[in-house]
Amino acid sequence: MSTVLKKGDVLVIVDLQRDFLPGGNLAVPDAHKIIEPINRYIEVFFLRHLPVIATRDWHPRNHCSFIDQGGTWPSHCVQGTDGALFPEELRLPEDIYVISKATLPEVEAYSGFANPDLKKILGDLGAKRLFVCGLATDYCVLHTVLDALDLGFNTYVLLDAVRAVDINTGERAIKDMQEKGACLIHSGDSITDGLLTSGLLTDFYQITMLKAYLDHGLRGQACFEFFVRRLPEGRAFLVAAGLEQVINYLLGVKFKEEDLCFLRQEGLPKEVTEYLRNFRFRGNIWAVPEGTIVFPGEPILRIEAPLPVAQIIETRLINILHFQTLIASKAVRCVLAAGERPLVDFGFRRAHGGEAGLLAARACYIAGFSATATLAAGLRFGIPISGTMAHSFVLAHKTEEEAFRDFAESRPGDLVLLIDTYDTTKAAGHITRLYPEFRDRDIYLKAVRIDSGDLLELSKQVRDIFDRAGMDKVGIFCSGSLDEYKIKKLIDLNAPIDAFGVGTNIDTSADAPFLDCAYKMVEYEGQPKMKHSEGKVTLPCRKQVFRQLDRSSGSFKVDIVGTIDEDIPGQRLLKEVMEAGRLTEPPEDLETIRKRLKNGLCHLPREIKEIVLTGQSYPVEFSNRLKKYLSVSDM
Amino acid sequence: MSTVLKKGDVLVIVDLQRDFLPGGNLAVPDAHKIIEPINRYIEVFFLRHLPVIATRDWHPRNHCSFIDQGGTWPSHCVQGTDGALFPEELRLPEDIYVISKATLPEVEAYSGFANPDLKKILGDLGAKRLFVCGLATDYCVLHTVLDALDLGFNTYVLLDAVRAVDINTGERAIKDMQEKGACLIHSGDSITDGLLTSGLLTDFYQITMLKAYLDHGLRGQACFEFFVRRLPEGRAFLVAAGLEQVINYLLGVKFKEEDLCFLRQEGLPKEVTEYLRNFRFRGNIWAVPEGTIVFPGEPILRIEAPLPVAQIIETRLINILHFQTLIASKAVRCVLAAGERPLVDFGFRRAHGGEAGLLAARACYIAGFSATATLAAGLRFGIPISGTMAHSFVLAHKTEEEAFRDFAESRPGDLVLLIDTYDTTKAAGHITRLYPEFRDRDIYLKAVRIDSGDLLELSKQVRDIFDRAGMDKVGIFCSGSLDEYKIKKLIDLNAPIDAFGVGTNIDTSADAPFLDCAYKMVEYEGQPKMKHSEGKVTLPCRKQVFRQLDRSSGSFKVDIVGTIDEDIPGQRLLKEVMEAGRLTEPPEDLETIRKRLKNGLCHLPREIKEIVLTGQSYPVEFSNRLKKYLSVSDM
Repeated sequence: MSTVLKKGDVLVIVDLQRDFLPGGNLAVPDAHKIIEPINRYIEVFFLRHLPVIATRDWHPRNHCSFIDQGGTWPSHCVQGTDGALFPEELRLPEDIYVISKATLPEVEAYSGFANPDLKKILGDLGAKRLFVCGLATDYCVLHTVLDALDLGFNTYVLLDAVRAVDINTGERAIKDMQEKGACLIHSGDSITDGLLTSGLLTDFYQITMLKAYLDHGLRGQACFEFFVRRLPEGRAFLVAAGLEQVINYLLGVKFKEEDLCFLRQEGLPKEVTEYLRNFRFRGNIWAVPEGTIVFPGEPILRIEAPLPVAQIIETRLINILHFQTLIASKAVRCVLAAGERPLVDFGFRRAHGGEAGLLAARACYIAGFSATATLAAGLRFGIPISGTMAHSFVLAHKTEEEAFRDFAESRPGDLVLLIDTYDTTKAAGHITRLYPEFRDRDIYLKAVRIDSGDLLELSKQVRDIFDRAGMDKVGIFCSGSLDEYKIKKLIDLNAPIDAFGVGTNIDTSADAPFLDCAYKMVEYEGQPKMKHSEGKVTLPCRKQVFRQLDRSSGSFKVDIVGTIDEDIPGQRLLKEVMEAGRLTEPPEDLETIRKRLKNGLCHLPREIKEIVLTGQSYPVEFSNRLKKYLSVSDM
Repeated sequence: MSTVLKKGDVLVIVDLQRDFLPGGNLAVPDAHKIIEPINRYIEVFFLRHLPVIATRDWHPRNHCSFIDQGGTWPSHCVQGTDGALFPEELRLPEDIYVISKATLPEVEAYSGFANPDLKKILGDLGAKRLFVCGLATDYCVLHTVLDALDLGFNTYVLLDAVRAVDINTGERAIKDMQEKGACLIHSGDSITDGLLTSGLLTDFYQITMLKAYLDHGLRGQACFEFFVRRLPEGRAFLVAAGLEQVINYLLGVKFKEEDLCFLRQEGLPKEVTEYLRNFRFRGNIWAVPEGTIVFPGEPILRIEAPLPVAQIIETRLINILHFQTLIASKAVRCVLAAGERPLVDFGFRRAHGGEAGLLAARACYIAGFSATATLAAGLRFGIPISGTMAHSFVLAHKTEEEAFRDFAESRPGDLVLLIDTYDTTKAAGHITRLYPEFRDRDIYLKAVRIDSGDLLELSKQVRDIFDRAGMDKVGIFCSGSLDEYKIKKLIDLNAPIDAFGVGTNIDTSADAPFLDCAYKMVEYEGQPKMKHSEGKVTLPCRKQVFRQLDRSSGSFKVDIVGTIDEDIPGQRLLKEVMEAGRLTEPPEDLETIRKRLKNGLCHLPREIKEIVLTGQSYPVEFSNRLKKYLSVSDM
């Protein structure tokens, strides 16, 4: 499960029609209050290129549910009447799907699925998860949700965007949906990352410059590119990551009242705060897809937007892209070192803050890790989670055996015991004595974990102890200050280790905790722009990366960085991912991104993948058109 | 301005009385809907040991505002009647201050300040900022807020906890308050950090163990201590930081419906999710105050809480404390290197995520920096902000002169020009030619910034150019990959630099991006506990640090780590900061923390403060009572 929106997600708005609003024939209390939240959800889905479906009651005049036909409801939502219309304030997208139901006199239908078109459309759309809102919680929302669950859709109820005919039956309906497996969502934050999107996540100079831009009419279209200038020591390639969070930031960034209040108190004039009050990102983005292998000098992302906009978003954009690219590029080296052995991310606690812990889990998963220990990363991104036990659990018991027995009873299906609290080999001995008891009681001991000491020696001793006790199926899981070099060494020395837990060294990219990256203007109003600062020269023009493969081996041969309009052979790495503020395709799921990287690694020349670098670097060349700028001294 | 609560903040609840609620004599529409938000605000203030004041209408039967006395309102809130009472659902704290107003027949009074007691109490409390909620926006809230502003209080209106008699006059009142200087706050998140507080910010094993703890009744009181095991290379002392964010996390941590839904989907049984549904932290905290200088082996914080609670919070607690302590300990070295020269934090963009960028700004300010470039850190923590200009501003103009002139016009009072976009000394020459024009137009050129190249040579050349042009008052501000070593070198070589901007190297603590820290159980149900893992032995017992000063010099001589009940001379570093979930004192402001560190640095032996370490370390000893545990092999 992941709450963040991705391909396969659909918004279903149930029966938000005039007759159910105040003044209508069958008004639901406070129903008008959900129009604004629903408009926000519509925008969230629309901008992410995700489909929106609206169901509607579409009754004949003599519908059996009407009181005058012996039913329980006043006449409502009669085909062709004003009461059946969607309210004007509801901002439905142009490409909405509308599902009419209960269209025949003799059939009552609360669920949108009563019309078979709904199921068919969802099938055509490849829908996997439905996010349901509308009216009324206790009737049509309830039955639509229950049918969706029956059909196997993961179904989410948007609590701030439903209302009930009756408070009590409404509450019962919510409990009922929850018990049947629906997930309750309290607010839109949960489905749009919920990470920080304040406009104030920017450097003050972006705002001091804004004043000057506005004063002097500098609002022309600017193009900025994000790229890494050079590789840190110990890296031979990079893995692009973080685009999804950049997109979620750009779709959400705005200045709240308190932000504007702060800026006024800091002396910013009213024309600046008024400009920021309406600030939204509605520009274009070109980017290499996440999980793509990239090299220094290659644009990873390009923003095309009015100069003040492109500038204000700079700080947070770099902050997001830099970090995930940094961590994915480190984590992939552990994956290469570990070969087929699974890796689990343990790093949240010493990551640099909460966001870093979450995003590092994501970057590690992109790189090929199997799981994370961080629950919130499991919820948010749908990464598999993995957990064992801590030393404190053992300490809280009188003896280690007692702790092992207690833990085994509470986790019989998937048991991993931590054995280094006191003495690792003694603990392994205890376990051989407990093992027959575990077997008799159907407790499945999957592995033991060693978190300290000489992992090579200890893993060999424990393996030996276990094998002699006939416990050859019990694995050994090691953790404790590991990185790609230590993993490689353990494997080279044939340590009998089946899986690794890695944390701090990866989640902080400890040997190279930052990348020399930049976000630089390359064009302004169609004119190429470049900077000449010592050691920091930037190449102008909107660029494309052309990746050429070796015909015989299929491996990457050379990348050519050219301008977008050059006709150079090779795979074009940058794609348009957003146009005028709307995604060109729905957000990718993480599995697609993982596969892209896995596939890329197959084509990456072997010497570039070595853990201990050979000094060879992958060739990146600049097109002749770009090269001529390098010789020009000023513009 | 800072939105996060601290000492000097007061909650003022205006006239939340029965007569103004539905069914009362003068019901305000939807007034009952603000009781829950106000209860939440009350809890937020109460748990932070901040005062709460409630005003009330307290009219005589013949009050002049009543219709039957020729006034405009129906009779309401008459002294001693039920209608004048606070509603039962309002959970007022025991130590609330109540202010009655309009108590005389002939005097109408909308503002709480009509009763002079309000001003007096606020004075006694040392109030600086008022957070106002209650009824009604367009009358008593409005007038109370306007009076508060007149009296010079920083005043915040809690928009989710006010309601108006009339929507239109209510909106006008809000605009009016805002224009007079009140700040509008949309939700409680803004005043409680707004950082991540999800219960799921934890390792999965905390929850797998929870199952076992519940199964086996292990819910006894546990004590865990957070400490740093050893110093990384390049550090001789640490600066404790992050306590405020730990507190805000612990006061806010909970599991939402969607979190529980996720855990159920992951197979956790109902007894676990039900336990988590009611999860709150209501334990004790002992900690060294932020800004205290500490050393390895010394507990920085102790949690006393039921074992499952102390365990679940572990991951996020370490995540917060580790990071800010790491950064403050790095940043203070830059402060020591820079001497009296101001330092500005530029690091958000390459910090590890948004939270890291914000918290690094805070840690740098604690360490003695003068300002941050990050606006959101300015808003949130009240750190002074500083901003200049970017290369892109110059690039967006045809010539550098034009860019300088444009920027100067838009920022005449506080101008810093960036001069290394093309050629630094040429740019300095341009500026000498622009300078007379600036002077004539009252534009104050405070400094120029150099962001690349050989800062020693360039600063000398630019200083020379400026001095020869009579511009000796124009300062030189340098930035670009700086750290404490480079700053020291520049100063040792007499570079004429007046201030430094530092970023990446500090905000990532690049030379040592993590600390070897731990959070370990030291007692369970009153019994001392210790771990024996190789290289990771922990000392048991609740501890205190006793810091002894040299009598003659006044500098720190030795720290003794003992148990809390030992009678050892010296200053006791750990204080009880939270008892049963409530702070023992209001949150400190950052200035107090900065001063504590500044003072501590004065008493720290000189050799410990060297930028290039001498190899000498500060003596930390263990009491005899603790030492005896080191020789015991098992417990």
